Amino acid sequence: MTGLSCRDILGTESLTQEDIHLILDTAESFREVSTRPIKKVPTLRGRTVINLFFEPSTRTRTSFEIAGKRMSADVINISGSTSSTVKGESLLDTAYNLEAMSPDLLVVRHSESGVPHMIASHIKTPVINAGDGQHEHPSQALLDLLTIRQRVKKLDGLNVLIVGDIAHSRVARSNIHAMNKCGMNVTLVGPPTMMPVGIEKLGVRVSYNLADAVEDADVIMMLRIQMERQKQHLFSSIREYANLFCLTQDKLKKARKDVLIMHPGPVNRGVEIALDVLESRHSVVLHQVNNGVAVRMALMFLLMGGGDEAAH
Amino acid sequence: MTGLSCRDILGTESLTQEDIHLILDTAESFREVSTRPIKKVPTLRGRTVINLFFEPSTRTRTSFEIAGKRMSADVINISGSTSSTVKGESLLDTAYNLEAMSPDLLVVRHSESGVPHMIASHIKTPVINAGDGQHEHPSQALLDLLTIRQRVKKLDGLNVLIVGDIAHSRVARSNIHAMNKCGMNVTLVGPPTMMPVGIEKLGVRVSYNLADAVEDADVIMMLRIQMERQKQHLFSSIREYANLFCLTQDKLKKARKDVLIMHPGPVNRGVEIALDVLESRHSVVLHQVNNGVAVRMALMFLLMGGGDEAAH
Amino acid sequence: MTGLSCRDILGTESLTQEDIHLILDTAESFREVSTRPIKKVPTLRGRTVINLFFEPSTRTRTSFEIAGKRMSADVINISGSTSSTVKGESLLDTAYNLEAMSPDLLVVRHSESGVPHMIASHIKTPVINAGDGQHEHPSQALLDLLTIRQRVKKLDGLNVLIVGDIAHSRVARSNIHAMNKCGMNVTLVGPPTMMPVGIEKLGVRVSYNLADAVEDADVIMMLRIQMERQKQHLFSSIREYANLFCLTQDKLKKARKDVLIMHPGPVNRGVEIALDVLESRHSVVLHQVNNGVAVRMALMFLLMGGGDEAAH
Repeated sequence: MTGLSCRDILGTESLTQEDIHLILDTAESFREVSTRPIKKVPTLRGRTVINLFFEPSTRTRTSFEIAGKRMSADVINISGSTSSTVKGESLLDTAYNLEAMSPDLLVVRHSESGVPHMIASHIKTPVINAGDGQHEHPSQALLDLLTIRQRVKKLDGLNVLIVGDIAHSRVARSNIHAMNKCGMNVTLVGPPTMMPVGIEKLGVRVSYNLADAVEDADVIMMLRIQMERQKQHLFSSIREYANLFCLTQDKLKKARKDVLIMHPGPVNRGVEIALDVLESRHSVVLHQVNNGVAVRMALMFLLMGGGDEAAH
Repeated sequence: MTGLSCRDILGTESLTQEDIHLILDTAESFREVSTRPIKKVPTLRGRTVINLFFEPSTRTRTSFEIAGKRMSADVINISGSTSSTVKGESLLDTAYNLEAMSPDLLVVRHSESGVPHMIASHIKTPVINAGDGQHEHPSQALLDLLTIRQRVKKLDGLNVLIVGDIAHSRVARSNIHAMNKCGMNVTLVGPPTMMPVGIEKLGVRVSYNLADAVEDADVIMMLRIQMERQKQHLFSSIREYANLFCLTQDKLKKARKDVLIMHPGPVNRGVEIALDVLESRHSVVLHQVNNGVAVRMALMFLLMGGGDEAAH
Repeated sequence: MTGLSCRDILGTESLTQEDIHLILDTAESFREVSTRPIKKVPTLRGRTVINLFFEPSTRTRTSFEIAGKRMSADVINISGSTSSTVKGESLLDTAYNLEAMSPDLLVVRHSESGVPHMIASHIKTPVINAGDGQHEHPSQALLDLLTIRQRVKKLDGLNVLIVGDIAHSRVARSNIHAMNKCGMNVTLVGPPTMMPVGIEKLGVRVSYNLADAVEDADVIMMLRIQMERQKQHLFSSIREYANLFCLTQDKLKKARKDVLIMHPGPVNRGVEIALDVLESRHSVVLHQVNNGVAVRMALMFLLMGGGDEAAH
């Protein structure tokens, strides 16, 4: 078996196109497990997964926990608030100490960019970045690609719009890198205050008009607006933002009949997506969530189970 | 096998008498599991149970978690404080997203009445109400009935007193519905400020004098007083409440020799029950807790395991 | 098999020398489990362990949880903040209620001394003290002894320095009792304000000069300084404390070439131990953490699994 080119999943930027396709193919083969009455395979029995979440997240933590348990791994949850970082224990101390308990995988989420990378560079245990600051959220991008590939049956050559607060979005960043590697054409749409300067260097196009940009899109990925950004004057009001960038039936007039509409959730209805658009057949938001479990099972399998010992 | 008449356990009001007896009989058969050295049956292996607790509760959450694990299910805990409702994700979004991860059961507790019903009406995954506001707490009533049936060997025709803050008690409401269906005669006792207007319509009697009311009772169920109600002027002082409604040896003078004394816990000693009464042979408070695990195993089995696939 | 002399592990003070050696020997035999690809033995399948942590602790809770899961036990975590002690439920009520759910072991941590003892004296379920106030932390002392025995190949006759805030340290107290029983010679070092009056009665020596005291030491165990003690005027400044008691290469000049340096973690670098000393070959801090899992597996096995039923 040909495995991943890397020991950790820190971001899509450090994955090869082959890695991405291997992950998606593996995830596809694990999707079936969650449809069985007995949703469990013995593949990772006796492996220890630690979910180290310094930033709260119901869905991502639950998705990793379910993925681990469906592979028969033991899953340990540690949340920032109960961790001994309250005792002044440094991040790196926490990582060293956890590693000394012989886990097989650390899943790390942190509100600051770079934390999973820093941890991974100091320990031998594989690390999955489950979201770091405004940097990367690779398992989200991978589940997005899996969802697109299932629906459109290919990735290469597809036109994708990513819409919203690009500058602060780790979901956007991970998708841009992954989509570039898979031959997809990415156009970013959003207010100028939310568009990173020089982002075109990443091989993407930029547009400020959603209704026009939808025309050629195979996929429209809406991002979540952090309401607290308003205080930072990145947009003047929710209403004004929604007028320009909320995906409505009206703005979809020029769109393709079979366009896919995606969102990493949770959706602010009427701000990022109008309710009727969200509930239309174009929307694959819950398929994304469903694919999240399969993608995380695949990542765990490829990082922990891809050796001879798994055959035992 | 004849199963339940319903897909969810939202309250005892929506259960039939046959449902109740099926649950109690099933619980009786599972009680033995918790007495073994190896307290585990493979019945629900590979099923995913999500404990979604928006209101904190050591005992109820732990009881459901232990019940699930003794049936070999995978149990995922989500508490309100760590859930992404802090991100403004709506309750229903949370439910839809969790359902997309293919769980087999959601156990929901919330401080507002009706939340488990609302969730159950929108998703296909079975839901157990683990307590919603002042509405229902069906697994508590079912474990109460199991405890009574074990001790008195029947339910039909028994006289039960339920004593305390009837108006605000989901335990009282679930017991009234369940006891009515099982042919039991319920008398409610408490201060007028804590007695719902028109409650007699539910087929119960009302009394304001505990010492008199105990006379014919086979079972006296004391409810927990929420100390914060005092601020709402529902009673003038804890002392006055205890004078009138604390179950003491003195107030038990006219009681039957074999009367059962119950409480859903935690007990405010000397407020609802005098210490010597709580420690007397009449008190079955800890038997109730013990039966809680068996009842929750039964509910999980009947909602998740009652099909052909369980035979695999 | 000869078992432990006690039903609970409340402190090293109540263990015999034979108990300690049995625990260390058993831990030694379980260390290998955590080095396998499949880190799991079926020994405690179907046993229920409840981690009841009223005081937050990433490492100790995680270590017990991993130990339980590697023995195939079901592990339930209850933290103080989510427990119904917020409802005014007393500690003892919590314990009685948990016991009624038929667990096989309670692991209790509390910021007040004596809580695990009080719980253990009222219930039949075995209790492990995972740290109580300034009293005892027996599993920490046992993993310390295991680490020393692995490195030095014996315990009897070794000279140990314990350095720091002796008066407030449950780690010191548990080690003093355990080391005394194993024939080790203990010298306590620290500022007079942090040295309990009359501590010599426990059969230890006291010194106030670290650089001199290191001379004959086989083992130097540094304790963690609680920074908030400074407000209590137990030392005038961190800088002054570090000048006198931080273990530096300079203070180690007279030390033995093969001295072991230990710390229960997390280390305040430059306060208790200088960075270069911490990273030197003398330091066994992470070996201590690693041994923690094996010691806790041993304690669980000896308290829960040492009977005939384990052979099934």
